[in-house]
Parts: sequence; structure tokens; C-alpha cells
Amino acid sequence: MRAVQVIGYHDKLQLNDVPEPTADGPLDVVVRIGGAGVCRTDLHILEGQWAEKSQVALPYTIGHENAGWVHAVGSAVTNVAVGDAVILHPLVTCGLCRACRFGDDVHCENNRFPGIDSDGGYAEYLLTTARSVVPLGDGLEPAAVAALADAGLTAYHAAAKAARILHPGDFCVMIGAGGLGHIGVQVMKAISGATLVVVDRNPEALTLASEIGADHTVLADGGHVAAIRELTGGKGAEAVIDFVGEGGATAEGVAMLRQAGSYFVVGYGENISVPTIDMVSSEINLIGNLVGSYNDLVELMALAAQGKVTLHTSTYALADFQQAIDDLDAGRVRGRTILVP
Amino acid sequence: MRAVQVIGYHDKLQLNDVPEPTADGPLDVVVRIGGAGVCRTDLHILEGQWAEKSQVALPYTIGHENAGWVHAVGSAVTNVAVGDAVILHPLVTCGLCRACRFGDDVHCENNRFPGIDSDGGYAEYLLTTARSVVPLGDGLEPAAVAALADAGLTAYHAAAKAARILHPGDFCVMIGAGGLGHIGVQVMKAISGATLVVVDRNPEALTLASEIGADHTVLADGGHVAAIRELTGGKGAEAVIDFVGEGGATAEGVAMLRQAGSYFVVGYGENISVPTIDMVSSEINLIGNLVGSYNDLVELMALAAQGKVTLHTSTYALADFQQAIDDLDAGRVRGRTILVP
Amino acid sequence: MRAVQVIGYHDKLQLNDVPEPTADGPLDVVVRIGGAGVCRTDLHILEGQWAEKSQVALPYTIGHENAGWVHAVGSAVTNVAVGDAVILHPLVTCGLCRACRFGDDVHCENNRFPGIDSDGGYAEYLLTTARSVVPLGDGLEPAAVAALADAGLTAYHAAAKAARILHPGDFCVMIGAGGLGHIGVQVMKAISGATLVVVDRNPEALTLASEIGADHTVLADGGHVAAIRELTGGKGAEAVIDFVGEGGATAEGVAMLRQAGSYFVVGYGENISVPTIDMVSSEINLIGNLVGSYNDLVELMALAAQGKVTLHTSTYALADFQQAIDDLDAGRVRGRTILVP
Amino acid sequence: MRAVQVIGYHDKLQLNDVPEPTADGPLDVVVRIGGAGVCRTDLHILEGQWAEKSQVALPYTIGHENAGWVHAVGSAVTNVAVGDAVILHPLVTCGLCRACRFGDDVHCENNRFPGIDSDGGYAEYLLTTARSVVPLGDGLEPAAVAALADAGLTAYHAAAKAARILHPGDFCVMIGAGGLGHIGVQVMKAISGATLVVVDRNPEALTLASEIGADHTVLADGGHVAAIRELTGGKGAEAVIDFVGEGGATAEGVAMLRQAGSYFVVGYGENISVPTIDMVSSEINLIGNLVGSYNDLVELMALAAQGKVTLHTSTYALADFQQAIDDLDAGRVRGRTILVP
Repeated sequence: MRAVQVIGYHDKLQLNDVPEPTADGPLDVVVRIGGAGVCRTDLHILEGQWAEKSQVALPYTIGHENAGWVHAVGSAVTNVAVGDAVILHPLVTCGLCRACRFGDDVHCENNRFPGIDSDGGYAEYLLTTARSVVPLGDGLEPAAVAALADAGLTAYHAAAKAARILHPGDFCVMIGAGGLGHIGVQVMKAISGATLVVVDRNPEALTLASEIGADHTVLADGGHVAAIRELTGGKGAEAVIDFVGEGGATAEGVAMLRQAGSYFVVGYGENISVPTIDMVSSEINLIGNLVGSYNDLVELMALAAQGKVTLHTSTYALADFQQAIDDLDAGRVRGRTILVP
Repeated sequence: MRAVQVIGYHDKLQLNDVPEPTADGPLDVVVRIGGAGVCRTDLHILEGQWAEKSQVALPYTIGHENAGWVHAVGSAVTNVAVGDAVILHPLVTCGLCRACRFGDDVHCENNRFPGIDSDGGYAEYLLTTARSVVPLGDGLEPAAVAALADAGLTAYHAAAKAARILHPGDFCVMIGAGGLGHIGVQVMKAISGATLVVVDRNPEALTLASEIGADHTVLADGGHVAAIRELTGGKGAEAVIDFVGEGGATAEGVAMLRQAGSYFVVGYGENISVPTIDMVSSEINLIGNLVGSYNDLVELMALAAQGKVTLHTSTYALADFQQAIDDLDAGRVRGRTILVP
Repeated sequence: MRAVQVIGYHDKLQLNDVPEPTADGPLDVVVRIGGAGVCRTDLHILEGQWAEKSQVALPYTIGHENAGWVHAVGSAVTNVAVGDAVILHPLVTCGLCRACRFGDDVHCENNRFPGIDSDGGYAEYLLTTARSVVPLGDGLEPAAVAALADAGLTAYHAAAKAARILHPGDFCVMIGAGGLGHIGVQVMKAISGATLVVVDRNPEALTLASEIGADHTVLADGGHVAAIRELTGGKGAEAVIDFVGEGGATAEGVAMLRQAGSYFVVGYGENISVPTIDMVSSEINLIGNLVGSYNDLVELMALAAQGKVTLHTSTYALADFQQAIDDLDAGRVRGRTILVP
Repeated sequence: MRAVQVIGYHDKLQLNDVPEPTADGPLDVVVRIGGAGVCRTDLHILEGQWAEKSQVALPYTIGHENAGWVHAVGSAVTNVAVGDAVILHPLVTCGLCRACRFGDDVHCENNRFPGIDSDGGYAEYLLTTARSVVPLGDGLEPAAVAALADAGLTAYHAAAKAARILHPGDFCVMIGAGGLGHIGVQVMKAISGATLVVVDRNPEALTLASEIGADHTVLADGGHVAAIRELTGGKGAEAVIDFVGEGGATAEGVAMLRQAGSYFVVGYGENISVPTIDMVSSEINLIGNLVGSYNDLVELMALAAQGKVTLHTSTYALADFQQAIDDLDAGRVRGRTILVP
């Protein structure tokens, strides 16, 4: 089959002919790819940033946001059948460790990560397991939802965690209305009655945020922390979700909190540094957020099937992968880029 | 001032001239009534059904769903000022018992209940305390929201409790789309991504339920339990909120549950009777629901201010109380009846 | 191998020679039995009470409280190795349904139940899967803990659920200090600061309850509901855990609750019947409880390894199964009966 | 009455004759002091560290850990009567703001803090309100429990928050087994089945920690982070409670966490600085902790009444305040210092 592979760091990707994966293990599932998201992480992989961490042997196939149709299943697979449309949880997990047993499979002690440390979805077929395939509801097409598999799932996870502590009338601030934030806005409005304030440097991003549900928008022009305090009657917000995590966003996010508020960090880059006296006297919480669980992905797909979470996508044929990468790198893409074999 | 009073059980209400209440106690608040809801409970009071339980001395002023403007305050009141528009939590609570200290003021060990066991709001003025007045946001008129003070608050409380265990894609069934259910539907859709199914005997009520957000409606024609099981893929619903509680609704509600599901009883009348073996083998929960707390009312007002919860009301002048009562009793009222002094 | 089998309902059990199970499936685990609990359910099986529900084909091997050592494992088993001492979760679960994915494996949609609907542990070997084996900490012997696999796990699960809503100084009442209650007392004292009151008809059971941690004991002599109300200052208990569930215990348990309290039903037999008006006006909860999850069993084993939960056991050789059954049936056993192959 | 007052920063305290407070306000309570804790914060006040923050006018009476007997009550006080033994919540709160209405009175928007910003308990009498007095159970003497009012309450609050996420077999690390930690150890063992590991630089503190319930102790000798990782099978602890918060403790505490673990900061001094990438990839939480709520203090007193939390105290007559201060400052005190009028 055709697969787009990393052949060397700082080299260009290459379209190779490789063997099709087969469902040899009892829980194996081979998925015919219907759409694979192209993500900034893919650019970072090519730059070698993940080489040491992933320890992946080259060449290998990248692509970690995948959806398609079940092509073949192992002997013990009971939850999907050949032909089913599915989206793939980004991790392949063991199901036996304590984290998996709690539904917290993201912290599986024995996971692998297709597209990062093993063959991913820039290809015609991909090997995963029964534990990672979420059936799509009627009306959802793999290529339309593929980008929800990782970026969208991360935004859903953080927003759903925050929503659990928010009441109607409480304030939730989201910093950054880009790829993740734009999903986060839609999720928060679908599952919570909190008042949602979106902060971004880009006026166009704020216009979009308003269209998809933000109750207030604040331009990040240096006066945004003060603006949030004013909006909240001087008290600050019950929750701040930071999709940026760099360029000073962490200190600003913490400064937007009210007493006993919670700051959710999703984007990353800088150190978060807070005096312990402030953490104690204000009794605030700093909450890390990784990608969501399998059950989170099921829930996000329910929202997508109801039309409450939508993505704008630009699709490219698999053979045009270089154009897709170049367009992403040059900032020429609106919404998410999807490769379709 | 003018006040509509109960002068005897099975007698008609009477418009009397009574002294205005005064804010003598440090936390007292006198409210000039802007609207008082007329409720079926008021009919039951006249029939004497509450006489023994309330032990109220006649004559007294009824009316337990009240909103208006602050008219006078005691020496220690800091949270409202004269002229503020407010809705009244139905109970006057002590703030000192353990329940109050947990925010669960509905279970205050020292409460009184204006309109039930002391003078209520079918009058020009009413005496309450600083602990029971919720300031109204801009754009909310007392007469428009008064009926949310008790009926609406009860629906909010139950829906918000259920929402805490529901995820997007889970099923929530509401039995009864009348006065409370119709608030419950709006609340659930505002704060949860669950799939909402409304069951009622009245096709018109179902049409309204669809208009205000129900994802599915089911006519209670004898096949409704089966219909719920079919809608849920044979598994049943994660939550059932029963606003009826009589005529067989409790057994039907429990039969609609999935494994580990929760049945929330709000309406009452019949006994709920379940074999313990069924409670154990299905591990289901039966959850009682009373009216909401002060903080619940604050949250409901936030939803009302955002336009997410609305009521259709029919207003009558206070002097036309008999017409209002008669119209309610005869079923001639659409939406909620409000007396305006 | 030798196995004690049901050959017909209302017949005696029979010791047969049957083939040893083998670990053919990828996640299969064959356990060499170190101890199998003899339970009242086993007597009920012989009386045919489970015939319709389990649909098991006769003859088959009973025994659903099992512990031992791993004897053989399938190709995909990674969490245990041959020779490991293990206790068995009573269910064999799929790991793929939504309940399993939430850690709520007791509600697995595709479970089987060795000893009830397939071959159990009154035998030399038993077939289960990697998902059902909990490694034992140092110092725990299979025969000593086998009875915690089902009866103990049920008590743990209910006590742990109740503990989550209890604070120091709150009251927890346990009705019934027999097999389950006696575990429940030890668990509750190990994980909660609540004040624990044990109710039983048997003064000796109460003496034992005091020895293992009950703060108060109340003889169930007809005045016990009143005694609970007096102990709790007239308010009732925050939680009641009912290990009896028959003979009037359910109504008594509900009558012991305070406002907003929760009644946990574990034992079963009678119907629980409560006026909806009482559920609403007191806002009480009735909570069903099934056996615990795999993770619950891990936690119970942690308490056992710390010496905080202990069992008195009477062991019999497998060949003496009839004596064990007869002694249990005649009430001649103190503590739990264990068969050792 | 006699009162020990701050007359100037960097001056010595002075015993003055001042007017007795009176219960003029409706919810006022005057307490005859039975014991007032002498705390390091009192030394810091004398050094002027709190001058700007508290804005207190000199002279004023210090002492913020107080217990005694009700001496006089205002007209609206219903929860205590003259003569009752009580411990005082450190804050005087309004009962009307949203935080108070949720039971989270520590974040009261209108609080005052006797001993810090108004007259405290180094005196014969102190003025507080009905909202701040917790009745003592039989057998508890004011002088014996006074030091639980602030230091103990802080430790209780943090330990109780951590206990809510801990299961039997999970690891909880406490850094620092001094005044607060030593209460924290007793609380955690009373309400949780977690395995408790105590870390301290002082071998004697570790010996005491073992005696009062620690399951493991680790000397903070530079190898302690590694020791924690080894104890936890390389995975880290589910919760770390840091009573130190300086000298590198925060970085060490975070390094002791497992995936998805929570670090609770109680002691303070340094900045906590964590790369956002670490917070995200490990999905850890950093949780601020202030003093506990009124209800927390009720619960701590329940544990004290049961003998599960005890303090070693050294008592001094009020007139010997200078000796008490000097002994504390010189490190000559074992346990907590209490002034008794």
C-alpha cells in the first residue's frame, strides 16, 4: 500500500510502497484510512524534536489523527465489524493496568502511539486494536471528524473537566481561540451554562469565537487581565483554560482567577511559576490536561453527531502530502488539513 | 396594605387591609411585591390539606412564589439595598445549622416558609430576610420571573443534580412536560450534552417540549416504557426525572433505567415500590428531590438573564385574585398565573 | 482433575473427574485453586433458584469465591505470571463495553460468572482471564482471602460508596453484622472517620462488631429505630447500609435516615416501599449496591495486606465438600467456610 | 480586662487593661478565653510582616487560635448558650456572600480575622459571632484544643481534600512532620486507607510520625525523591501534601508524583515553578490549600473527641506571655504553646 514516511529528520517526507498491516493479534483491528489530520506535531517530528522521546526506527509512517472504516479484525474483536466507520483514539492501550481499569486509559502504563512511535495514518491502512476504535454515528464521515481524534479530543477533555466545577453564572475564560480553543468553545457551550469569555490576540479569531458561542470576547492587547477582572466584578473567573501556555499566558491566566479558582493548562511552552504564598492565600488550583480518554472521544462524537461541534477542513489527496505540509507550514490553511487516501 | 388572606379552610380568600411589615430584625428585608405566582398548592391550602402540617394561625396571607423590590432593610443587611429588584428563595433559613453551613439551606433545621406557615406574597409587601433575597440581573422583571421562585427552582434543582452524572450521548428521560417539566427541559439543554427524551400523555405538551429543546418525545400511551428501551438500544436511560410521581409513573420510570441508572423523583403522590433484588442486581439509585437552594436560585436566575429559561405568564391585578384562582382551578390558564399588586 | 459438580437440582453435589482447563485464548488464565469459599448462594443453586436465570447446562462445577496461583496464561497476558498468588474477581468481563471502559466492570454487557453460569472453583483448576486476576501482596494466602472475592467485595463496595459522602462526626448505621456486615465494619473504620453504629438481632454479633471497631451497637429488639434517632440527637443518620434487606429492615433503615440521608441496600428479599412524598420532603436517596469492581478488589486486598480486614475461616479438604455444605446449612460454621483442594 | 497587645512593631508585647467586649450586635458572641495558641505568625506580626496587609490600628490584642466558654450572646444567637465550651473558627464571616452560601466561608468576601486585623485572644475575653463558634463535645477542654483552631484546621483541610482522591493502596506522601504535619498524619490515618509516607529532615520527627500512624518514613537527606519513587514501584505517589513549601520542597514534591497525581501546597515560602510540558504530559495537579471552613472545624473536633487527633501542649499563664514568646522563639517548646488567662 502507499504510505507517507519519515525517512530521516530534516529530510522531506516520502511516499513509499509498504506492506499492508494484518490483524494477527486477537484484538487487532486494521482500519482503511478515510482521513488523516495534518498537525503541527508532524512538522516537529520532521525537525527531529520527537526523535529521542519516541525512539521510533526510521523509516516509519506518520499521522496521529485518524478515522476510516474497519478493514479486518482479530479473533477476539467484538465491538466493531468490518465496514464500520470509526474514529481512532490516538493511543493503543493495554486494558489491564490500573489506569486503564479506571477508564483513565490515557495514563496506560503500556501504551503505544501510532504516528509517533509506530506506523500512523498517512497511509491507506493502519493497525490499531479493538480498544481504540470508536464507531461513528449516522451522518458522520471519517474525513470530516479525523481532526477531532487528537486536537479535538484534547480540547474536549479540558473543557469537560472544567465544566464539572462550573455553574450557570460562573465565568470561564479561554485563552486562545485557534485550533483547540475553537473546539473548546463549542464543547463548553454544549455542556455548561457558564458564561464564556474568549481571549485572543487575533480579532478574527474573536469574531469566530462569538459566532460559535462565546458570550464575551477580549482582545489580548495588554489590558486583557484587567478586562477580565472588570467583567467579573473584580473577582476573577472560576475557571481559566489556557490553550496557549507560552508568551506569558500562564502568568496572565493565573492572574485572571478568583479565590479558589482553577487554571487549566493545555497549551505548553513556558514554565508556570507562582509564589506558594499566592497559591495558599487564594487557594487556587493549577490543573494539567493531556488528551482525552476513549470514553471522552465517544462523548465528543456524540456532540459531533448532534451538530454541536463542527470543524472547517481542507482536504488533500494523500499523494499531495507535500503540498499539505507546505501549506500548513506557511500558514495558508484555514481550519484543519486532512489527507484522504 | 392590601393582602389576600385565608380566613378559613373551604372558605374563599378575602382581600383585607393589614399592617405593613417592618424590618425590625437586623437581617430583615421587606420586599414590595412585583409579582406573586398562583400555584396549585394554594388551592390545596384552601382545601385544608396543609392545615395540620403548617399549623398556621388564620387569617394569614398566602403566596409562596414571590419577587419584587427591596423596600426596607434591617441594620445588618449588606447584600441588597432599597430599590433592588429581587426574587425570593421560598424558605427563610437560619444560616447557622450544619445544613445551612454546607449551602444545603433547604434542609435548614430552623426554617419558616412564607405563604405556607407565615404571611406570604399575595400582598403589597412581604417580610423575609437577607438570606432569602436574590438580586435580579439587568433585564429581569419581578413579575416575569416570580414563578421560578418555587416551581422553577424545584425543576432546576433536580435537573442540575441529574446533569452532574450525565455525559454527552447519555440518555435523560423526563416524565411530564407540564409546569415543572417545561422548566426542566430548558435547564437540561442549557447545562448538559445529554440526549433528552420527554414523555407525556398530552401531545401538545410534547410539541412544546420539542420546541424548547427535547431531542425526542414519546407519547405516554402505554407503550412508552418499551419505546424508551428501544430508543436506548435496549439498555435504558442513565437518568429518569419524574415530574409526575403518581398514576404508575414511578414503576414506569424505574423500568426505563439502565444498569446503574438513577431515577429522580420530583412529582409525588403514589408509593414507590421496588424489589430489593432489582435494586441490587441492577444497582440503580432512587433519588429524592426537594426545592433548590439559594445558590441554585442564583444559578437559575443566571440562565433566565441569558434568555435560556423563559416562562409564559398570565398576569392579574391583585384585586382580581378570585378570577386568577378560578381560572387556574378550571384549567383556563396557559403557563403560570401571576398576581401583580 | 477433581471437581465438585451440580448434576441435578435438588440432588447432592458430586465429585467428578473432569478435564483440566487450558489457556487457549490470548487473555486466558488458568488458576490452580488455593481456596474456594462455600456460600449460601451455593445452597440456593442446588435448590434450583438460579436455574432459569443462569441457564447453565448441567453438570457444571460450582464455586464463585476463588483464589489460588496462576497455572497457565494465554499469549497476550502481561499482568500476571505463572506462580503468582491471585484472588479472582467474580466476573469475567469484556473490557470493551462502555461500563468496562469506565472501570465499572460489574456492569459489563458481556460478562460471565464462573460458579454460576460456567465452571467455578470447587475444583483443582479454574479458567478465568487476565482481566479478573488480582495479584496478592506479600503475606496473603489464597485460602485466607478467598471469601473476600465475592461476599467481602460486596461489603467493601457498599462501604466505600457510603464513605464518600460521610464526614467525621456523621453517623453511619449498618444493619446486620453477619458475614458481609462484619467486613463492612472493618472497611468503614479503615477508610472513614464517621461514627459507626451497628444494629443486629444477635447480641454476640454486636459484641464482635464492637471488638472490630463499631462505635455503638444497638440490639434489634423493636426499639432500634427509636434508639438510632436518640443516638443521633433526633436527626437520624447520614447513611444507613442495610446488609439484611428483608423482615422489615428496609422500612426501618429508611426511618433511620436524616434529611438528605442515603440508604444503601445490599441484602435483599423484600420490596422497598416508600411514599414519594417522603422521598421528596426529606430528599432522601435509596442506593442499590452490587458486588464491587476489579479496582475495588485491588483496594480491598490492600486493606487485607495491611491487616485491617480479616476473616475467620474454617477450612475443609475438597473431598469433604459434603460436610462443608452440611455444616453451613445447619449453622454449625463460625466465619466463612473454605474448600482447599 | 487584661489583654496582651501589640503597641508597636519591633517592640515587645504589653499587658494592658482594656474594656471587656460586649455582645451588642444581634449575632455577636463574647467568649471567655480558656486557651489561646501562641504561633509563629505572632512573632511575624511583631516583626511588622503583617502590618501592611492587615492595616490594623495599634495597639491591638493578638492571638488567633482561640477556645473558651460563651460569656454573652447577641439577640439573634441560637446555636450556642452562655456557658458552652467552644472553639473559634479563625475568621468572622458574613454568611451572605456566595462563598459563605456554599459552605466555603474561608473565601468570605467580607471577613475579618481576630488576632490579625482586630482584637484577638491573648486576653480574658474575645468578641466573635455565632457563625464562628463550634461547640466542643464532652471531654474536650478549651486549652487542650485551642491550637487546632488554625494550625490544626489547616492540616485537616488539606488532608481531607487529599483523602477524597485516595483509595486504599494509593500512596500519600507528607513533606514535613512538624506542627501541621503531625496533625495531618493523624487526620489522614483516621479518614483514609491510603498508605502514608512521611518525609522530614529530622529523625525525631520521623519517629513521632511512625508512632502516630505513618506507614513509612523517609529521611530528607537528598535521596528522598528517589526513595519515594522506589517505594512506589517507580510510579510515584497519587498525592503529595507539602507542609514545608520552601527550601526546594516544591520541586521535590512535584517530582514525587505519579501520572495524574496531585500536589497539595500548604507550607509556603518559595515559588513553585513547573514546565507546562510536564504538567501536560503527566497531567498533574497543583492544589492550593488555605485554612479549613467552619464545617471542617466541626469535623476536626469530632476526631478530637474520639481521641484520634491529639496535641502535646505546654501551657503558660497569660501574665507569662513574654516567657511563652521567648521559649517559642528560642525553640525550647515541644508541641504547641497555650496561654491560659
